[in-house]
Formats: sequence, structure tokens, C-alpha cells
Amino acid sequence: MRMSSKEQEIVQSIQELSDQAGTHSPSISTITEKIPELNIEVDACFLSNPYATDLFSRQMQEDLIQSGRLREVLEFYPSQNQVVAENLSHFLEVPKEKIFIGNGATEIIQAVIHNFTRRKIVINIPTFSPYYEFVPEGVEVVYNQLYHGEGFQFNLERYIELIERENPDTLVLINPNNPSGCYIELADIEYLVNRLHWVDNIIIDESFIHFAFEGQSTDLVSATYLTEKFENLVLMKSMSKDFGIAGIRAGYAVMDENKVNDLLENGYLWNLSGLAEYFFRLYSNPEFQKRYEKVRVRYLNETQQFFAELGKLSGLKAYPSKANFVLVELTNGMKADDFTAGMLVKHGVYTRDCRDKIGLEGEFVRIASRSWEENKRIVNAAKDVLRTGNTGFGLGRN
Amino acid sequence: MRMSSKEQEIVQSIQELSDQAGTHSPSISTITEKIPELNIEVDACFLSNPYATDLFSRQMQEDLIQSGRLREVLEFYPSQNQVVAENLSHFLEVPKEKIFIGNGATEIIQAVIHNFTRRKIVINIPTFSPYYEFVPEGVEVVYNQLYHGEGFQFNLERYIELIERENPDTLVLINPNNPSGCYIELADIEYLVNRLHWVDNIIIDESFIHFAFEGQSTDLVSATYLTEKFENLVLMKSMSKDFGIAGIRAGYAVMDENKVNDLLENGYLWNLSGLAEYFFRLYSNPEFQKRYEKVRVRYLNETQQFFAELGKLSGLKAYPSKANFVLVELTNGMKADDFTAGMLVKHGVYTRDCRDKIGLEGEFVRIASRSWEENKRIVNAAKDVLRTGNTGFGLGRN
Repeated sequence: MRMSSKEQEIVQSIQELSDQAGTHSPSISTITEKIPELNIEVDACFLSNPYATDLFSRQMQEDLIQSGRLREVLEFYPSQNQVVAENLSHFLEVPKEKIFIGNGATEIIQAVIHNFTRRKIVINIPTFSPYYEFVPEGVEVVYNQLYHGEGFQFNLERYIELIERENPDTLVLINPNNPSGCYIELADIEYLVNRLHWVDNIIIDESFIHFAFEGQSTDLVSATYLTEKFENLVLMKSMSKDFGIAGIRAGYAVMDENKVNDLLENGYLWNLSGLAEYFFRLYSNPEFQKRYEKVRVRYLNETQQFFAELGKLSGLKAYPSKANFVLVELTNGMKADDFTAGMLVKHGVYTRDCRDKIGLEGEFVRIASRSWEENKRIVNAAKDVLRTGNTGFGLGRN
Repeated sequence: MRMSSKEQEIVQSIQELSDQAGTHSPSISTITEKIPELNIEVDACFLSNPYATDLFSRQMQEDLIQSGRLREVLEFYPSQNQVVAENLSHFLEVPKEKIFIGNGATEIIQAVIHNFTRRKIVINIPTFSPYYEFVPEGVEVVYNQLYHGEGFQFNLERYIELIERENPDTLVLINPNNPSGCYIELADIEYLVNRLHWVDNIIIDESFIHFAFEGQSTDLVSATYLTEKFENLVLMKSMSKDFGIAGIRAGYAVMDENKVNDLLENGYLWNLSGLAEYFFRLYSNPEFQKRYEKVRVRYLNETQQFFAELGKLSGLKAYPSKANFVLVELTNGMKADDFTAGMLVKHGVYTRDCRDKIGLEGEFVRIASRSWEENKRIVNAAKDVLRTGNTGFGLGRN
């Protein structure tokens, strides 16, 4: 694969933007603003179900745009946390007193770690960086390495031993994990929570759980039900991944009502926008849920087919994933930054170079599942890039 | 004024909602959802410039709805704090490193008090309740009473003496103050900040500053320029009051760059929605600013005329205000809850009974300035309610 000097310039510009963005990939709008000559046709960094985005957009068009109601949603104060929690409680089948609504899941991660973590936190790596970036001064971070040689699978007994030895007050489990896509079965979660009932805060982040499944069933799985029995459990969830509404900022957590009270008594007044409130009301509507369930299952099935297709390509290894992205490792000697540069500049496909992820040594790229058509383009682009090999003009940081 | 039994029932329902809402009045959408038979025609609890809301709505209609761009604003991750700060820095004429963008001003109040207040905070009363509600455990709160007999005016020398005696690490000044509307001249602010340069955090909340003025000029006033010289100054501002966009959640603060860094290093990732980012980009546009300036000055002038008309009514005293609301005291023996009930049930005008405000003993009501036509209705309704007097079916809590 040869690049023209124009293409090399584009690669250089992207590299600069990546460096500025730190541990998160620069957004597609930032990239297209700064590098207008770049044509991103498939955003395979963006983790969302595009069919659910369509469903939500159509419904919002009808409810807010055509009716002219959008103005009032933006003009007036949204309801406070407890009001939205009440709506959601029917759908989640947990008491409203146990629900905390967040301005995106990142607000909840920050709220929980800043308010309830006092001494020591154990975080699996590779992971989603805010879990260690948000840790306050004075709190010790212990990393539990998920091993390359074990396919980044979570080892239950070894984990429990580590926790018993380290005696932390907070644990974080992302299930399925980001960026590995590894899934911990609910039976294992239940076993673990039973064994570790003495830990103050067990955070289970189910932001990608709508794309997971157990056995042959595509029914929704979730550890939410365990919050009834275990007061130390903090189950949290972003809604951006399911619905592709990252711009609305919507997430929730289910936790002990004393924790919810602690948070609400000392802040988080009007932390939701009018559109987030609209979203949660819609999401809690059983009729809308039925329609969502169809697009969820469709996307889940297509996503697994996509991963299987990628896994057939020679030159990469696709790790088993129950999320809506797949971690791939380049096995043909190619560099990850070269692969992502080739995908982007030659094919307009934006993928995530994972070299900034701590605990992930090697040439790894995270690829999101998009629509059926886009997924086909991603597979063809990857096939082409893998065939032509290194160019020496990677995107990676030095 | 006699009430029918139907009207008495409505009053009862409103009283229950007010009790549930705590220290903030229930939102108009909550009220109309729970009491559909109530017809609120003028929301004089809601603090915003309705002409600016019209201007913003028309612009958004063109930029996002007609163009179909709304979907991408909601779908993709908004820019991070520093990107939006860079836009705003040109308009504010302060370095971007000193700007923190918040999900509404309440998020900023929480961020600053939770992160930078360690020992003792001095708060003027009566005030906006989050300033004391958000104070963390272990921090002492000292109230500086603004005296009824002095028209709730801020006494500069007495305040400085109190601060020197109490030795707090944080001060809060809302300018103009809520709910009194009292304004501290910029020269006095500058004098005060010079004298109290040794206090760690001086918070100046300018959420209502767009409705203030000095002398005969209607030019925008602000203490923002003082942040250049004084590292301890935290200037914060809600945008909801100026633009009537409470549902978007948009606020900002200007403070020392080390404080901004402290906040951003440990959280506040993606705390803005896509619409908040759109709003700040628009607000930073000089051409839009020119159009906004016209509706700001129009509203400011109408607001002062409205306050003058209210002040002429017999049976109440209107305190001088440079905000977009006026604090009125009933002087004819009428109870505040009776007044607000009469205004709402008989005239469809929703006003704010202030009896839950600490440091405000007596029969006080806060009335917001709305459009020219609505303000006329408010004056006429008040005249009628004041004439008919007490009914005994007040809205107040027991």
C-alpha cells in the first residue's frame, strides 16, 4: 500500500488530533472540522446500534419536532432525578429509591468513585480509561491484568484471590469488557458477588450488555436483579451504546438507596437535560420497548456474523466478543497505526488504534459493528489493507 | 376573594407538590401533569428573557431542524470541555485555560464547592439554596444576613469585617442576588476582592448579570475582567436565565487555570450535551451576539418598567431589583401563600412564595418579568388579588 503525499499529510494531521485528544479518540466532528479533505464514510470507532438510532430518531421526530414540543423541552427545567427514576423503575423492576440518573455514564463513574471509594480500587486492564483517570488523590489503584495468552478472559478464582489479598473497598467489572469484548456469565457474577459480599462497592458496568447473550437465547441479560440482595452492588449503564445518543448524555445506576440519597442530598440537582428526560420516558414505555427489542436482536445477530467474517481474514486474530465491537490483533507483522491509517485514508473507515490502552501490549485495533452494509465495507477494507501491508505512515503516537 | 370547592382542591394539590419539591418550586410540567385542571397562563416563577428564547429557537430551527443536522448533534459525542472553552474564550476575552464549561451552573457550584472548599464558607442570606445544600460534610457554613430593614442591601464594610473575623476559605456573592435582586456595583466588587485577596475562593455568581446595569447605560456589566488579576476569583454563570434554555443545561465559569486543570484531570469528561455545545458555539458568534444584544436591552428596559408598575400597587412593597425578578413584600396583612394561590387559581399566574427561603421572615413573593403582554397581566392580577385580600386557603407549607 503506497500513500500519496496528500495522504501522508492527512495521516500527519490525524496523528496530531489523536495526541491532543489524550486517551479518547478524537470525535468524527472534530476530525472533519480540522481535516475537511478527509472523507470518513464508516465510523467504526463509534459504539452504537444504528438501527436503534433510526428508531429513536423517527420517534423523536414525531413526538418533538412535528408537534413543535421541542421548544418546551429545551426551555423549561427538566424534572429532578427522582422523577425520572420513578419512570425507569417500572421498566427495570427495581424500587425508584435505588435508581440514580446520570448525565451520561461518565458522570456516574465520577460520582461513585469520588463519593464512595476511600482507600483502594481494583480495575481490570485493558479497560475504559475514566475508571482510573477519575480516581481521587490518596486512593490506591490496583490493576488486575487480563492476560493476552488467555485471550483476555476473566479468571474468576484468580480474581477472588487477588481481592482477598489486596482488601480493596471498590471493584470495577465492565461486562462485556471494553475493549476486549469478553463477557462474564451471570452465574459467575452471582458467585463472585456472594464471595465478595464484604467489599464496600462492587461496580458492574453493563454499558454493552444489550449486545450480550447466554447460550442460544438472544434475550436481554443483566445482573440488575442482584441489587435487591447485595447492598454493595453498583450496577451502572450508559444508554449511548444501545441507542446512539451520545450527544444526549444519558445513563443510570442501580445501587443501595443510602448511596442514592448521599448523592442527591449533596448535589446532582438538574443534572439531566430535557432531551435526556424525554429519552428515559420513551425508553420506559412498554410499547416502545417492544419495537426496540426487535432492532436490538437484529443488530446483535448481525454483529456476531460480522465478527465471524472478520475472524476469517488472514493476518488478524479477532477475539471473541459479546459487545458491539471486536478487538483484533494484527498477526502479519503490520503495525496497528498503519492498519488504522490505511483503513481511514484509503477506505474512509475510522477504527480505533488501541496502543494507548494500558495493559494491552501488541498491535491491537478495536472495530465497532455498524449497519449490515457498513460491516461489509469494513470487512472488504480490512481485507485490502491486510493484503497490502505496512506503509510506514502509521497514526500512532511516538 | 372566595374560592370554590374545586379551586380549594387545586390549591391543596399544589401545596402537596410544593412540599415534595423541597426548596425549589415544582416545575410547570410537573404541575400540569399532576393537576391537569389547572390552567397556568403566565409562569412568573420562570426566570428567563422570553425574547431571547424566541431568538434562539428561530436560529436553532434553521441550523438544526430545517437542515436535518439535529440527529448528528444527538447521535455523536459532543466535544470535550476545552474545545467548547476555546470557542467561548474569544467572546469572553479570557484565555481558554481559565474557562470551565458546566452542565448548567448547578454542576459548577457543586464542582467548585466539593473540590475547593475545605473549611468554612460564608453565604449571604436570603440566597439560592444549592449554595448551602451542596456544602460537604465537615465544612462550616456561616450565614451573612442581609437585613430586611436595610432593604436586603449588601453592606460592604460590615461584610469585610465579618470575613476578617471568620477567616473562611470560600465566599459566595450572587450578583444581582437571588431572590432579593440587589446589585453590588463593580467598583465595590473590585474593592472587596482587593481587600480579601487572601481568601482561597471568592465565588461571584453572575447568573442574572445580563439584566443589570450601572448608571444610565444598558451596556453589559461583568466582573469577568477581575479574573485576570485575582487567582482566587471564581466567576460563574448560568445561561438559562438569559436565553430560557434551562432544558439544555449550560453554564460556565472563569477561574484560575490550576483550578480548571484540577477539575478536568479528575472528571467532567463529556459533561456537555450536543445541544449545549451548539448553544455555546452560537453564543460565541459575534453576529448572533449583535442580535442577542438588542433583545437583551429591550427586555432589560421592559423589566424595569414592570417593576415600577408593580411598585405603584398599594398593599405591597417592591424591593429595587437589577435582576429579571422582583421581590415583593405584602404590606396589607395578606399571607404570601394566599397571594400566590389567588394569582394562580383565579388568574393563571404562577409566582414564587418565598416562605421556604432561610433568612427571609415575612410575607414575600418573587415575581419574574416575562413578555410585555404577560407583565401587564401580572400587574392586573396582582391588583385584583391585593384588593380582595386573604381567603385562608394559602399554598404555604405548615
